[in-house]
Amino acid sequence: MHILVTNDDGVQAPGLLALATAMRPLGKVTVFAPDHNWSASGHVKTMDRPLRVRETTLADGSSAFTSDGAPSDCVALALLGLVEDTVDLVVSGINPNANIGHDVTYSGTVTAAMEAVIDSVPGIGVSLDSPDGFRGVLDYSTAAMVAHKVAEQTIKDGLPKGVVLNVNVPYLKEAELKGYMITRQGLRVYRDALDQRLDPRGRPYYWIGGEAPTGVVEEGTDFGAMKGGYVSITPLQLDLTHYKAMDVLKKWKWK
Amino acid sequence: MHILVTNDDGVQAPGLLALATAMRPLGKVTVFAPDHNWSASGHVKTMDRPLRVRETTLADGSSAFTSDGAPSDCVALALLGLVEDTVDLVVSGINPNANIGHDVTYSGTVTAAMEAVIDSVPGIGVSLDSPDGFRGVLDYSTAAMVAHKVAEQTIKDGLPKGVVLNVNVPYLKEAELKGYMITRQGLRVYRDALDQRLDPRGRPYYWIGGEAPTGVVEEGTDFGAMKGGYVSITPLQLDLTHYKAMDVLKKWKWK
Repeated sequence: MHILVTNDDGVQAPGLLALATAMRPLGKVTVFAPDHNWSASGHVKTMDRPLRVRETTLADGSSAFTSDGAPSDCVALALLGLVEDTVDLVVSGINPNANIGHDVTYSGTVTAAMEAVIDSVPGIGVSLDSPDGFRGVLDYSTAAMVAHKVAEQTIKDGLPKGVVLNVNVPYLKEAELKGYMITRQGLRVYRDALDQRLDPRGRPYYWIGGEAPTGVVEEGTDFGAMKGGYVSITPLQLDLTHYKAMDVLKKWKWK
Repeated sequence: MHILVTNDDGVQAPGLLALATAMRPLGKVTVFAPDHNWSASGHVKTMDRPLRVRETTLADGSSAFTSDGAPSDCVALALLGLVEDTVDLVVSGINPNANIGHDVTYSGTVTAAMEAVIDSVPGIGVSLDSPDGFRGVLDYSTAAMVAHKVAEQTIKDGLPKGVVLNVNVPYLKEAELKGYMITRQGLRVYRDALDQRLDPRGRPYYWIGGEAPTGVVEEGTDFGAMKGGYVSITPLQLDLTHYKAMDVLKKWKWK
């Protein structure tokens, strides 16, 4: 079993080391992650410039690959043969913030796992639902334990074809976890606001500001699981077709 | 009717002007597009730096807004009130290449339209299936006519809630078009390969190379429509949940 570990926060992020450490008992682990933070970068594939790859060392002295490409690039490079041995599973994370609701379309953590699935390798994204505005040192131990369990299950039972697992873990001690919940993607409520300011030369610039987005806490969703203290496991697909809407559109008149 | 026109190729791309011109008969048009090319950038929202916005002029002398943000940022800024009057419809494109199959998760054109739908405004992405490796001046006239028709229909009938329209137009004269087809997202077949080279100092660098990706030409898909000479209209959704896989995962044992 050869597990590729990546993330979107950069190769020196503590969540990456926590994830790599949690995967080691399951097989050979190769770490290959971006050399800088790509948070909220979405699904990026770099075709218009060449990529550099170098070896580096994580905080525990273990070796890792890093590249100036995006998370999906790291996955693509690894699967195209830049790392030795065929990769059997790609696990991405641990993201220091939840990736729930519409977050998934922006998330580098999730899209790195999607890139694996596009290349027919199972992919799992793992994120920690840390408290809003938390500034201290995050405790990744519960999320790492969860990542281990989910990866172990995936290795044992396999994933249905084309499925990406989006795993979100509440910020709780292991003993406080209520359990595991298979969920659907919930709805984010964005409360963005335009924040215009003037630079020292009097010219305007703009922040996308406003309050932190919330979610619709509905039973059966990723938001509901977080609220209830459950690990959320959402199977995602790469087919975005809205099948029900096809029938509506077929009634449109094109004359 | 106030239509926001954007793209991911940058404000001076000819496809943007073709699209803006096609929208003008339908209402007030505001153009707001990135100041540089964001192709294959996925769904990006810029929260960690402020954005600049300036007015510029398109090749026909009409005015446009441009920003150093991503396509989704341009949409977000416009909808948050940076442009006058409420936006009723967002149309993105015309992309010089098709966005079919898995392309949609990478596509700045499509994710700009998704950003609109997240903010409860109908969104349409329009792309031209130009020939592989085409280097000359593209003829956007058929795609512009199609964009006009689809936007007109959308204004008349509305879109089902949460639906993004992904429109792809074959590279044909209007008279050669076979018609319109409501399609599902097809499957891309990637033929990426790792291309290692040495720089002038003997250090390796890597291109994600290989042959151009192809698609599985299946009836009812976007690929099938392109192959048959039909306009492809795929309704996309923002809910990526793989509902069928939920039942499989619920059988997993967590002890």
